[in-house]
Amino acid sequence: MTGATRRYRYASDKPSLLGRLKKIEGQARGIHEMIKDDRYCIDIVQQLNALSAAADEAALLVLESHIEGCVTDAIRSGRGDDDVKELMKTIRKAVRR
Amino acid sequence: MTGATRRYRYASDKPSLLGRLKKIEGQARGIHEMIKDDRYCIDIVQQLNALSAAADEAALLVLESHIEGCVTDAIRSGRGDDDVKELMKTIRKAVRR
Amino acid sequence: MTGATRRYRYASDKPSLLGRLKKIEGQARGIHEMIKDDRYCIDIVQQLNALSAAADEAALLVLESHIEGCVTDAIRSGRGDDDVKELMKTIRKAVRR
Amino acid sequence: MTGATRRYRYASDKPSLLGRLKKIEGQARGIHEMIKDDRYCIDIVQQLNALSAAADEAALLVLESHIEGCVTDAIRSGRGDDDVKELMKTIRKAVRR
Repeated sequence: MTGATRRYRYASDKPSLLGRLKKIEGQARGIHEMIKDDRYCIDIVQQLNALSAAADEAALLVLESHIEGCVTDAIRSGRGDDDVKELMKTIRKAVRR
Repeated sequence: MTGATRRYRYASDKPSLLGRLKKIEGQARGIHEMIKDDRYCIDIVQQLNALSAAADEAALLVLESHIEGCVTDAIRSGRGDDDVKELMKTIRKAVRR
Repeated sequence: MTGATRRYRYASDKPSLLGRLKKIEGQARGIHEMIKDDRYCIDIVQQLNALSAAADEAALLVLESHIEGCVTDAIRSGRGDDDVKELMKTIRKAVRR
Repeated sequence: MTGATRRYRYASDKPSLLGRLKKIEGQARGIHEMIKDDRYCIDIVQQLNALSAAADEAALLVLESHIEGCVTDAIRSGRGDDDVKELMKTIRKAVRR
């Protein structure tokens, strides 16, 4: 589960993913300010929705690398069953929440 | 839209909301670390899902205060139509994404 | 909860809503056929997603009538607290699933 | 894309899936009745949410068979790239709506 092959699978997206997380962190800080400044409720809700959508998008990108990398490798080497099960559990959670 | 009545409607939840945003900021920072450390994809996806769920929960709390406060007040004073329309637009976006 | 005022609040949308439900029923029947005919998985998933989206849209329309009608009336007559609570519970479920 | 191997991948779930679609069709018919009978809005919204959740669940089951069957087969035979791309597009739509 923690072998080197798996670890580096989102490596190509790493700088972009790190940038996304920095941005999400900034969004959280911005919304904190908005609340402190008693800004209008609906504006805050919209910014929270944007933050949530940004996190979902990042999750999809990691999932994509995971499927193209880890899961594909595992299936090719004939030990993909557990990965597919784990993947389905993750998709299920993401879809149903 | 920006009158004092509306502005302070989530005031009672303000400390709790500010705490939630601080926590979300911390989650974003933690996931940034996980990516930097090449942690396992599925673990990262799960943490991103948790962050997204935390943002959705905060949005629901603000929306709740908004309905109990701003929208209720506006309806009572006979000028609720725009608020209900705006509310519906916000719910629609939150539900459909 | 079941007074006449509330009952007929989506009356203006009733023909359109009934049409939507007929359409959803037809979609379900169509997907049943697709499965029986062993049609391609992804095509079935897409049709199921379309059906689900159609149901969500109908739910939003009813919710909209409900807020513009029942909830607004209840708030105006000073007995809106329970309706707002019930509304929030419904929104919460729709958003989080 | 439409070879025999793929076609029958959800075969093991077929009776259960057909039953689910029959049930969804019945739910649509039931909600149609509720609207015709001017039943309470929130009850209708809840039934629509239940129908939508049932469709999502059926979609997840087909997707699961698809990954365990079609996608796994395609990857094993070295022609999985398109399937993974198509899969990601489908997941993306299901998650973001």
